[in-house]
Amino acid sequence: MTPPAPTRHTVFFISDGTGITAETLGHSLLSQFEGIQPAQVRMPFIDSDAKAADCVAQINAAGTKDGNRPIVISTLVNPGAATVLRQANALILDFFGAFISPLEAELGIKSSHTIGRSHSLVNSSEYVARMDAINFTLAHDDGVSSAELDKSDVILVGVSRSGKTPTSLYLAIQFGIKAANYPLIPEDFERNKLPDGLSKHRHKLFGLTINPDRLAAIRQERRPDSTYASIENCRWEIDQAQKLMRREGIEWLESTTKSIEEIGATLLQSLKIDRRTC
Amino acid sequence: MTPPAPTRHTVFFISDGTGITAETLGHSLLSQFEGIQPAQVRMPFIDSDAKAADCVAQINAAGTKDGNRPIVISTLVNPGAATVLRQANALILDFFGAFISPLEAELGIKSSHTIGRSHSLVNSSEYVARMDAINFTLAHDDGVSSAELDKSDVILVGVSRSGKTPTSLYLAIQFGIKAANYPLIPEDFERNKLPDGLSKHRHKLFGLTINPDRLAAIRQERRPDSTYASIENCRWEIDQAQKLMRREGIEWLESTTKSIEEIGATLLQSLKIDRRTC
Repeated sequence: MTPPAPTRHTVFFISDGTGITAETLGHSLLSQFEGIQPAQVRMPFIDSDAKAADCVAQINAAGTKDGNRPIVISTLVNPGAATVLRQANALILDFFGAFISPLEAELGIKSSHTIGRSHSLVNSSEYVARMDAINFTLAHDDGVSSAELDKSDVILVGVSRSGKTPTSLYLAIQFGIKAANYPLIPEDFERNKLPDGLSKHRHKLFGLTINPDRLAAIRQERRPDSTYASIENCRWEIDQAQKLMRREGIEWLESTTKSIEEIGATLLQSLKIDRRTC
Repeated sequence: MTPPAPTRHTVFFISDGTGITAETLGHSLLSQFEGIQPAQVRMPFIDSDAKAADCVAQINAAGTKDGNRPIVISTLVNPGAATVLRQANALILDFFGAFISPLEAELGIKSSHTIGRSHSLVNSSEYVARMDAINFTLAHDDGVSSAELDKSDVILVGVSRSGKTPTSLYLAIQFGIKAANYPLIPEDFERNKLPDGLSKHRHKLFGLTINPDRLAAIRQERRPDSTYASIENCRWEIDQAQKLMRREGIEWLESTTKSIEEIGATLLQSLKIDRRTC
């Protein structure tokens, strides 16, 4: 007995602001349902009754076309626009309606309901720290001077193409963390210890390792048929890197099946660091 | 009359997985309340009853210390852990409880409730596209060959330090969009048109401009007391860049007071492009 084919639904992400929260929320919810692949429509900057009325028209049209009510993930805070939106023939999951009221009661203050306020952060110390961290990480990708390592929050170590760069950039953009990289190379393995400049930062070090087959495949795309990309060399480098990290007492994670979000969360927990502000 | 000082609350972000969704959600909620600066505790990977019980102890301890119930933003999907968590003396905002049930009814299927599933995306085409886009954007920051522009989804143009690089990286990491940059320089203004290699990609072009005082301040940090950083030169470059973009029919945005999230959402809407998969 095969399960019935999933019915077709369109999902709308509707927001006064950028729609990032609505979309993150929505993806997280939808990922809990196997086998559905709904059409997705992002509608940011819905900050007036007229724009909300336009959304309602689009939602109802999609419902007619699909033969099923659309699903609406809304982070609208503007009361007028939210009221208009409720006229749509759809399942409306209203993020602010569900959570803002209990928070107002708990905190004993009223919410600002300011349109787009949650992303008007450009002058906040948190935003400045994120931009600084992006610049730092770009300037210090793959090898850094000792002086600059003093300024870093985290130093990722691992063999070439083990995932250090995307992880560093994610940490910078998401958390404002200044992440430097240090690629482990054959000279480090021959020396059998970390360079002196790195040892004194051991509390900031976090290692990445990777499955040798996966590493060989990634390197093969970069430099086809090179020694660098050969499975024998990849096995040797990873084995040496793990021995070095074990000897130096560096915590590490295998990146093969982990997303940058998972690596980042594990690293922050392990090094006991948190989102930065200036 | 001064308003009363806000009471002290600790906010916990609790998740089976990385906690990114709980934190995004939580920041969005908290930003609606003026003047509160709660202590924030991220507790990822809470995937057992024992770990949930440990959370409850920490939540209750914080409540005793603060003299106020903590606020808990939970994205727990594990029913056992969620039940344990409900024993905490806190305001618990339960994301899955509030939204999963109505979704199950609407879709007519049960949710998978798989722990951490929402971030186990490493082998998905969406994740692969994001990693490809990060590599592309890093390789093509500040000037690209015409051949490579064919592969880009977006080409950001603007004067040096107008915000192109952080925006490109955000688009790559968040949406898997291959974003190239083209810095507008005095040669472009003298020539009075875009280079031939760019003109044929006009549908992918998006401009960034910036307030001259802000630009001068940013450049001053990079190259103090240079002509490059002088307010006169910044005014001239921005004026020329805007004339060129207007002449070429390029949509642009002033980045001065906009976050990369806001710039990104505006750009996607304007160019009518969406999240990429392979």
